[in-house]
Amino acid sequence: MGSGKILVAQGGGPTAVINQSLVGVALEARRFRDVTRVYGALHGVRGIVDEQFVDLTQETSHNLELVAATPSSALGSTRDKPDVKYCAEIFNVLRAHEIEHFFYIGGNDSSDTVRIVSEQARTAGYPLRAIHIPKTIDNDLVGSDHTPGFPSAARFVAQAFAGANLDNASLPGVYVGVVMGRHAGFLTAASALGKKFPDDGPHLIYLPERTFSIEAFLADVKATYERHGRCVIAVSEGIHDASGEPIATLLAKDVERDAHGNVQLSGTGALADLLCDEIKAKLGIKRVRGDTFGYLQRSFIGCVSDVDQREAREVGEKAVQYAFWGDRDGSVAIRRTGFYSADYALLPLSDVAGKTRTMEDEFIAPSGTDVTDAFRLYLRPLLGSGMPDAFRLRCARVAKILKP
Amino acid sequence: MGSGKILVAQGGGPTAVINQSLVGVALEARRFRDVTRVYGALHGVRGIVDEQFVDLTQETSHNLELVAATPSSALGSTRDKPDVKYCAEIFNVLRAHEIEHFFYIGGNDSSDTVRIVSEQARTAGYPLRAIHIPKTIDNDLVGSDHTPGFPSAARFVAQAFAGANLDNASLPGVYVGVVMGRHAGFLTAASALGKKFPDDGPHLIYLPERTFSIEAFLADVKATYERHGRCVIAVSEGIHDASGEPIATLLAKDVERDAHGNVQLSGTGALADLLCDEIKAKLGIKRVRGDTFGYLQRSFIGCVSDVDQREAREVGEKAVQYAFWGDRDGSVAIRRTGFYSADYALLPLSDVAGKTRTMEDEFIAPSGTDVTDAFRLYLRPLLGSGMPDAFRLRCARVAKILKP
Repeated sequence: MGSGKILVAQGGGPTAVINQSLVGVALEARRFRDVTRVYGALHGVRGIVDEQFVDLTQETSHNLELVAATPSSALGSTRDKPDVKYCAEIFNVLRAHEIEHFFYIGGNDSSDTVRIVSEQARTAGYPLRAIHIPKTIDNDLVGSDHTPGFPSAARFVAQAFAGANLDNASLPGVYVGVVMGRHAGFLTAASALGKKFPDDGPHLIYLPERTFSIEAFLADVKATYERHGRCVIAVSEGIHDASGEPIATLLAKDVERDAHGNVQLSGTGALADLLCDEIKAKLGIKRVRGDTFGYLQRSFIGCVSDVDQREAREVGEKAVQYAFWGDRDGSVAIRRTGFYSADYALLPLSDVAGKTRTMEDEFIAPSGTDVTDAFRLYLRPLLGSGMPDAFRLRCARVAKILKP
Repeated sequence: MGSGKILVAQGGGPTAVINQSLVGVALEARRFRDVTRVYGALHGVRGIVDEQFVDLTQETSHNLELVAATPSSALGSTRDKPDVKYCAEIFNVLRAHEIEHFFYIGGNDSSDTVRIVSEQARTAGYPLRAIHIPKTIDNDLVGSDHTPGFPSAARFVAQAFAGANLDNASLPGVYVGVVMGRHAGFLTAASALGKKFPDDGPHLIYLPERTFSIEAFLADVKATYERHGRCVIAVSEGIHDASGEPIATLLAKDVERDAHGNVQLSGTGALADLLCDEIKAKLGIKRVRGDTFGYLQRSFIGCVSDVDQREAREVGEKAVQYAFWGDRDGSVAIRRTGFYSADYALLPLSDVAGKTRTMEDEFIAPSGTDVTDAFRLYLRPLLGSGMPDAFRLRCARVAKILKP
């Protein structure tokens, strides 16, 4: 039996519920008689190699509950991707501190980190239990019905488009909202749940799962504008042409890549502006506006799904239970068991690590620019309770007198 | 005594509470024995000249309450600015429909419309009672403590920056958030109420009430980044150089102006990208992100101040009361009477029309890049109840073993 010290860390982009998972680990672990210390690493695996640890063992449960409800990674995060040398440093530290249980909360990049660490530990003969805890607003982890962080971000996007649709209806024109989603369009597709009335926007949704063509885009916008006198469009930041080149990089002057080789797509309004310019120039429409939702959709305080909060907490608890009751490393996955209920499973890390899920064809309408009812039924229960609702006046027209 | 028909319309940009004012008018008016019809004009004064009226008299009170809670102009809006000829057409229509009470909900552009209509009516000898009902997220109407629509937008901005600060703390870098506000910085300054801890962002706030210099901006950012290892910045879309030229127009390729002569500042990410590019190039910081909040801050469904909702409703009720109990045209104004309570007054249209309020010096810190406690006390009660709150872990550091 080891020292009873466990270590938890958070990696990748933050979400509104990532601290639920952290607190799930901390509170569940503190219940186990064999656990003597709960350590957190600051800024993910970077904090491990730098020995930047904090001791969560004596943190009050009440403050942990308040932190759990606070968005964004309370321990800080990182986008580092450990290679073999980096992992050797991680082991030195884990070994020096006698840590034998490692919990890493993150997306598919972070799950790959856990896989490497797990394999290195096995090769080195070190008794490490390493569990990956899912997290991502993109919903692109393989093997899960959905991922913690996604429902709350989806709720933000749905509410944002419900509002953008109302704004656009009051001062009609064309509105383009650019949503996060490098390879997976789930978050962009969530905009569809902001639609209530048959003529509501978003009228057009462009996903990275479909090839984007400027010509087809302009034709769609023209047709919609002629039918409704306005047009609300949801576009994924990851849309690309037939060769796979992101539309956004056609304009980005300095293409910045992070340590995982991902092109930096957020933080620049270039895609929204490009599309708006095209619409103004080619269709001659004057009132054209674009917003890039950017970091708001993953960090806005005060927009969260209670279903997401509960599940993010549970995957943290389950991770500890799998680590102490089970006999293998793995990645915690969410399974849907009813309409609506969920359960959990532990998947082999190789099933998940470095893999990307994209939207299934059953969720995308044949037109390619809308979602199906299957998607609406899939997402609606995840958005949680207390979703705001929009209402319209119901009143008769008054007969004209001067120009009947 | 006239026909008992009244007309209400909404002009300018929508807000989260503009329908509270509409419903305040409709419900209060329906209580008056002399009122026989409550008409709404679709899309503001444009709807009057086109005789696009709807009859709100038989709309159920329950649906009106649901519409009141829905953001964005339920009657639609316009940015038209009537000239003499346009107003003559308005009168023809009002006269034809025997309307003698006109209520227009809008900002300082709309208050000028009411002033022109009121003067035209007087000149023409037509017995019209015209009341301007305040509305604007910019808080820039002269004569009021604040304006309906501003508190809810301010709440959105405060929550957005609270979240952006948390995001930036977890993955440190520089974050620039661009907020609406052509000439007045109130909405940008509201970002300061997202700050809780001494080292929280926004660390720097740039308002249109102060001259913006790129050199000073970069020096501020550099100093903050060196002190905190990160920097969160709130910037008004209306920042300008010493000559008054908006920084945004330096980059905007096609400067679009609306009918009121306002440069279109929203719907383009240009300003955020310009500032981010400068920071990357001149300070050599790699992780730099910018978001332009755009229309989200005035239309996001589900982020509203209950104080704002109540006051927006009341200015609608008061407008009807002034119209039927009083003897003059005017603009409804909000007065602050305690900490916190409000009352109302009717100002002469000439006091308000076409005038712009900007932030008073007592609200802006001497540094020019922060707000004062006077501003915090001014704004906090307007944000309403149930503001989300962010919490941090409180735990001791673990001693290093390998690199003490």
